[in-house]
Amino acid sequence: MRVAYHEVIQTLEKILLKNGFSEDRASLCAFLFAQASLDGVSSHGLDRFPVFLEMIRKNLVKPNNEANLLDSYGVFERWNGNLGPGPLNAHQCMDRAIQLSKEFGVGIVALQNTNHWMRAGNYGWQAAEAGCIGICFTNTKPNMPAWGGSEPKLGNNPLVIAIPRSKGHIVLDMAMSQFSYGKLKTYLREGKEMPFDAGFDGNGNLIKSPESIIDNELALPIGLWKGAGLSLLLDMLATILSGGNATFQVGESREEAGLSQIFICLDAAKLGVMEWSDEKLDQIVMDLKASLTFGDKEVRYPGENNMKTRNKNIAEGISVAEDIWREILNFSL
Amino acid sequence: MRVAYHEVIQTLEKILLKNGFSEDRASLCAFLFAQASLDGVSSHGLDRFPVFLEMIRKNLVKPNNEANLLDSYGVFERWNGNLGPGPLNAHQCMDRAIQLSKEFGVGIVALQNTNHWMRAGNYGWQAAEAGCIGICFTNTKPNMPAWGGSEPKLGNNPLVIAIPRSKGHIVLDMAMSQFSYGKLKTYLREGKEMPFDAGFDGNGNLIKSPESIIDNELALPIGLWKGAGLSLLLDMLATILSGGNATFQVGESREEAGLSQIFICLDAAKLGVMEWSDEKLDQIVMDLKASLTFGDKEVRYPGENNMKTRNKNIAEGISVAEDIWREILNFSL
Repeated sequence: MRVAYHEVIQTLEKILLKNGFSEDRASLCAFLFAQASLDGVSSHGLDRFPVFLEMIRKNLVKPNNEANLLDSYGVFERWNGNLGPGPLNAHQCMDRAIQLSKEFGVGIVALQNTNHWMRAGNYGWQAAEAGCIGICFTNTKPNMPAWGGSEPKLGNNPLVIAIPRSKGHIVLDMAMSQFSYGKLKTYLREGKEMPFDAGFDGNGNLIKSPESIIDNELALPIGLWKGAGLSLLLDMLATILSGGNATFQVGESREEAGLSQIFICLDAAKLGVMEWSDEKLDQIVMDLKASLTFGDKEVRYPGENNMKTRNKNIAEGISVAEDIWREILNFSL
Repeated sequence: MRVAYHEVIQTLEKILLKNGFSEDRASLCAFLFAQASLDGVSSHGLDRFPVFLEMIRKNLVKPNNEANLLDSYGVFERWNGNLGPGPLNAHQCMDRAIQLSKEFGVGIVALQNTNHWMRAGNYGWQAAEAGCIGICFTNTKPNMPAWGGSEPKLGNNPLVIAIPRSKGHIVLDMAMSQFSYGKLKTYLREGKEMPFDAGFDGNGNLIKSPESIIDNELALPIGLWKGAGLSLLLDMLATILSGGNATFQVGESREEAGLSQIFICLDAAKLGVMEWSDEKLDQIVMDLKASLTFGDKEVRYPGENNMKTRNKNIAEGISVAEDIWREILNFSL
């Protein structure tokens, strides 16, 4: 079904207010959930909203705890998220990184003690819309094996790189697992195999069948040992720069709370990049899209369809599964 | 065969002096080639030295052209490599990023118009040995397809992330292709299939057989569409921040010259990270290495064996293929 954007926002706001959010915070938080669905990432938008409310009810996410500054070193700041709502903390820290980059050319914020930021790409779009190159990443609970390992030790640690461009920002939003558990579960429900190797069976063989991958939490790191290494290093960077929890510590609590995140901005104008960046980016995009392809495939750049999807959903209403929307409406009663 | 470290250094120095290098530059360049082999990465050390000399003879690499500063914005600087030797330019720019980070906490150098830096990991070790978190990446000529594409459009754009640690630095050094062309050629020579999917055949199917992958330059990006996206974004970042060539422009010249690179340092001491970083990193490493494994596999962290290999090669001499060493000795006559 499709629900009008303003109706989605109003409904989420009302629920958040009932759950202890102040007005401003309810409004921004509703926007961030709605934006994910608006941009076609409902897995980390409306679909996730009931889980988010559950985390609030368990007191793992504290609605009105704001992030506060711990240490300031010019371009680099360390913040404490105080276990507040992940989307609000992330939005605040990317905003702070943007401000720092407008002042110094570069801004880096390391955030400890925060919660799941939901759709990672939101914060990349936020940076790009402010004219900044934005890079951010988060750790997660352990949900992938190390290379050779038979138990989850690494997080899938999503990474975002966003580059502003007049004809459409380029925004890469990728977790370190080949497929998300959400995608694996969808294929399982539909009784299908994954289109590519997706994880390991109980003997360490690469498999496409979602069931045992989900049961054993042995999702495949992208590029096998390479994505496993990259995931580890992102966790280490987020942990030591923020002074917060590592993936293994998040795992010990058995709840995905108390995460560590990094937000990096480079202001294109301040660093003298504006003079040539649009032209260079357009050339790269043109060359890429002119690629010969197999069959009738089309080559796309990351984020290419985002605005098309957003505009369609603004015009026609946000696409949401009926049972999810019914569940959300129940929370508003 | 094995050749003593000092003999390798002396031989390379002598050849570089004969090829127009000044004394200081010959000495550092010899060290950087030797270090790659010393650390077990001979594919980008001694094995590559004859190709490097060929690039000098073609006047694509200009021995005594030094990098010079183009723009300075506090923590961020833009440099021109003036088509000098890639290893010397990269070493100089990582050194400059280290200096900036010692002053500001963070230092970023974008380098245009440089050449192949040979072993990427060298510059990660350089940063870590200076007490800095070091991140660097380079673009390359096109050597991988875009997702869906049937011709090389993306570079394999190596990425390095290095984290200093008292008990052993953690250094990730990975290209965006699942296997290097060097590795593919080794398997081809030995008449073997790759152990995992390594690229595409002429119909876009994933294959393990190296021959047609090499012929068509269709090496597999790590994580399929994900590594393709990451490679693209690294090229865009290196290009627009440095103001230099993009991968497609490097490809137009049909020689791998005039590359764009980024060097990022965060000084651990300056950012207040020293207080906890060793303890946190040791805990993460311990947890990782305690992983249950399939069979008798051992889980390792990136860079774990580097110092062991280095020390063995210092003691016993650097391992080098006889024909390569003979070729190098001929250049010294």
